[in-house]
Amino acid sequence: MLVKGKQIDYALYLVTDRHYLGGRDLVAEVLKAVAGGVTVVQLREKNANSRDFYQLALALKEALVPRGVPLIINDRLDIALAADADGLHVGQEDLPVTVVRPLLGEDKIIGLSVSNEEELREGENTGADYLGVGPVFATPTKDDAAAPLGIEKLRLLRQKTRLPLVAIGGIDLDNLKAVRDTGMDGVAVVSALMTSPDIQAAARRMINLWQNR
Amino acid sequence: MLVKGKQIDYALYLVTDRHYLGGRDLVAEVLKAVAGGVTVVQLREKNANSRDFYQLALALKEALVPRGVPLIINDRLDIALAADADGLHVGQEDLPVTVVRPLLGEDKIIGLSVSNEEELREGENTGADYLGVGPVFATPTKDDAAAPLGIEKLRLLRQKTRLPLVAIGGIDLDNLKAVRDTGMDGVAVVSALMTSPDIQAAARRMINLWQNR
Repeated sequence: MLVKGKQIDYALYLVTDRHYLGGRDLVAEVLKAVAGGVTVVQLREKNANSRDFYQLALALKEALVPRGVPLIINDRLDIALAADADGLHVGQEDLPVTVVRPLLGEDKIIGLSVSNEEELREGENTGADYLGVGPVFATPTKDDAAAPLGIEKLRLLRQKTRLPLVAIGGIDLDNLKAVRDTGMDGVAVVSALMTSPDIQAAARRMINLWQNR
Repeated sequence: MLVKGKQIDYALYLVTDRHYLGGRDLVAEVLKAVAGGVTVVQLREKNANSRDFYQLALALKEALVPRGVPLIINDRLDIALAADADGLHVGQEDLPVTVVRPLLGEDKIIGLSVSNEEELREGENTGADYLGVGPVFATPTKDDAAAPLGIEKLRLLRQKTRLPLVAIGGIDLDNLKAVRDTGMDGVAVVSALMTSPDIQAAARRMINLWQNR
């Protein structure tokens, strides 16, 4: 199975947000996105109770395992443990990586959100497997996000670490190539996929752009 | 240290709610409540981010360990694990006890909220160490709570299990003796203590009533 972050294809990293789905089923939409080319899925639930979050994680895991696509849980170590997910993504306001690692184990992926060089270095020193870097552009998804980094700052941060970097924040078809050309290992996308009426086609267009086809 | 729920004094079980504190410091208020007679503390944080929840749990644990008062975390297994708390309390919308137990270990306390005989039996069958039974009376604390059980139903539920039972929901100085006389092992209190301008005196009055002094 999946061992350590370095062996993961981070190219098109879907972060879920049920808020954008209206009545559409999350698992069904995620599977369409995977069929389109999504390579990693992060389940992000900011308002669900723990039971619902857990059951959603179980359902997604069951759907993703046969497709070889890793499932990362946002913020909640308990859900990652309970559902035996492939990993956990934490932000600066979540549990510290140093606290999470011994509880989650060496074989699981831990990602950390960073928005500047200091946080990037902290992520490297505490043993994160990859870093989410952003926001690259202004985004409607997180209203508490820091100021956008922009492409040049992304390029600078790329030179500071050999850890896999996944750019996040306002990435769409128009700016995806510019982001890729900074040397990122992947792009994380919320709204550009979750709001699409045809998520499979949207994912296909993004992965094709990423692979320069 | 504290081993298994049966050895715990559940008499006066404080459930925190920072919402009631205004600007007052949570750890300081909890310590006053413990000085007044609180025997168990449950940290309940429904809106904090994971980092703040964790740091609050660490601070409370550090304050409570020398006083021999167990710290139980509400809902969040990850926080209980990260802070090495004495136990976890889950509700019907949180992670199932059967999922929590192997992750938390046999030496930790697991409490389950129940509001009827079916849930009580489930708690017994899944290995909870104690059950929170309620709401006994109408309460302003949880707006999603079930209909109040009342004293007679509490007495009936008491006869259905040998597990420690802690009654919760609208318990105050006026009804505490009636609740105690149903055979409960303790009373859990939120607002009657958290809203008090003198939480130590309020806890003292409650524990004295409980002990019939």
